[in-house]
Amino acid sequence: MYLCRRFRSRILLIYMETIRTRRTVRQYSGRDIEPEMLHQLLNDAARTQTMGNLQLYSVIITRSTQGKAALAPAHFNQPMVQGAPVVLTICADFRRVTTWALCRKGNPGYDNLLSFMNAATDALLFTQTFCNLAEESGLGLCFLGTTIYQPQAIIDALHLPKLVFPVATLTVGWPAEEPPLSDRLPMESFVHEETYHDPTPEDINKFYAEKEALPENREFVRINNKETLAQIFTDIRYTKSDNEQLSRTLSEALRRQGFLQ
Amino acid sequence: MYLCRRFRSRILLIYMETIRTRRTVRQYSGRDIEPEMLHQLLNDAARTQTMGNLQLYSVIITRSTQGKAALAPAHFNQPMVQGAPVVLTICADFRRVTTWALCRKGNPGYDNLLSFMNAATDALLFTQTFCNLAEESGLGLCFLGTTIYQPQAIIDALHLPKLVFPVATLTVGWPAEEPPLSDRLPMESFVHEETYHDPTPEDINKFYAEKEALPENREFVRINNKETLAQIFTDIRYTKSDNEQLSRTLSEALRRQGFLQ
Repeated sequence: MYLCRRFRSRILLIYMETIRTRRTVRQYSGRDIEPEMLHQLLNDAARTQTMGNLQLYSVIITRSTQGKAALAPAHFNQPMVQGAPVVLTICADFRRVTTWALCRKGNPGYDNLLSFMNAATDALLFTQTFCNLAEESGLGLCFLGTTIYQPQAIIDALHLPKLVFPVATLTVGWPAEEPPLSDRLPMESFVHEETYHDPTPEDINKFYAEKEALPENREFVRINNKETLAQIFTDIRYTKSDNEQLSRTLSEALRRQGFLQ
Repeated sequence: MYLCRRFRSRILLIYMETIRTRRTVRQYSGRDIEPEMLHQLLNDAARTQTMGNLQLYSVIITRSTQGKAALAPAHFNQPMVQGAPVVLTICADFRRVTTWALCRKGNPGYDNLLSFMNAATDALLFTQTFCNLAEESGLGLCFLGTTIYQPQAIIDALHLPKLVFPVATLTVGWPAEEPPLSDRLPMESFVHEETYHDPTPEDINKFYAEKEALPENREFVRINNKETLAQIFTDIRYTKSDNEQLSRTLSEALRRQGFLQ
């Protein structure tokens, strides 16, 4: 038993060395990713649990120059899209199951918000196992949160039919940079025992002290003529008016793809 | 270069042995999970990338008998909830950032659908890294998709305030069973090159042949007096009327938590 626990601890440690040193990589070497390797990673990521084991996701692999050029504007022309050998767009997909059911005398009813969330959940869990496997294999990744900002442009570029909706984009390649590790909040800020404990202003001071003190963050505040780091997020990066506008385009795209009435 | 690639392949293989043999575990031994181990896993999972590095999630740890009893009905009294030493409820959380902003003269605007999806994405990616790390460490897990079916019951049990919404539940413990590996669709069913290729009826036959031929699935069809396996999903497990009803309660809970107007 003692040996067994020591063995487990050793495995834990080996694994965690990798996760602990991961960073988002936005610059890639000229080296391509061999299709066999990419397919193996995708196939292994599919061991991730899904709703009823239905695997409610699809992945579109973009390798072509034209394909990347078509996707780039949807991601605000961030240079990773055209700079990476591979771009993956991971979609919530109830189309395949719906087609299966229609071919088999079933009565599918997945044109609704719950089903979208079920498929988005499957897609995002799959995405993150892929990220962990790919990073473990030495690849570098950038997760593009812009995917749900302008989904219609992605839907058009990738010819996504109804009941297929993009929820994540990864740019993938062999790293040509090793950026510094980014900061994280202390664990007590996001872990709650038994019930949720609403943070007090004193908690907030403690949780955000390190982030607010980082020289690069102080510099952001200075060059943007703001008083606080939080204002960088609320007044510049993720504003109320942008969020409200993008919520409308997100709802509209969900409606067009058949997930909202 | 050749050595380097061999080395990478070896790492890949070591990692993948674990992911390739994972299975959902619903029965746990009496052994507890030490708080230090759980905290280390949660802290390491927090290396996962998030929107603007804001970590838009929270985790509620339930260890108490009363706490599990309060959660169980929300999960249709599936026995894992009360049978596991630890239940984790992972929430999309824009509350902490909103409170931070309000303490720092910011103007937060995260009471909308886009912000819910951003936080749900962060929460689900974090959840899956936790799953990968925990399984790598020898723990067994069950992901409960029921979390978004009756979210209000979970919100009440865990005292979740506005802008906090449960998106995933994990029951976690040391495995007391080793169920058989479950089937997966062939990769060509969910991987598309350059654009989405809508499956034809012939594709569907090919993609679902293995699943439909499994003895346990044929038995499901028989004992339920159905003609096809797809009908098990559409007519019994995930029906149109249930999905529509649960979509309404999901929307209602999102509204009450402040994410929908």
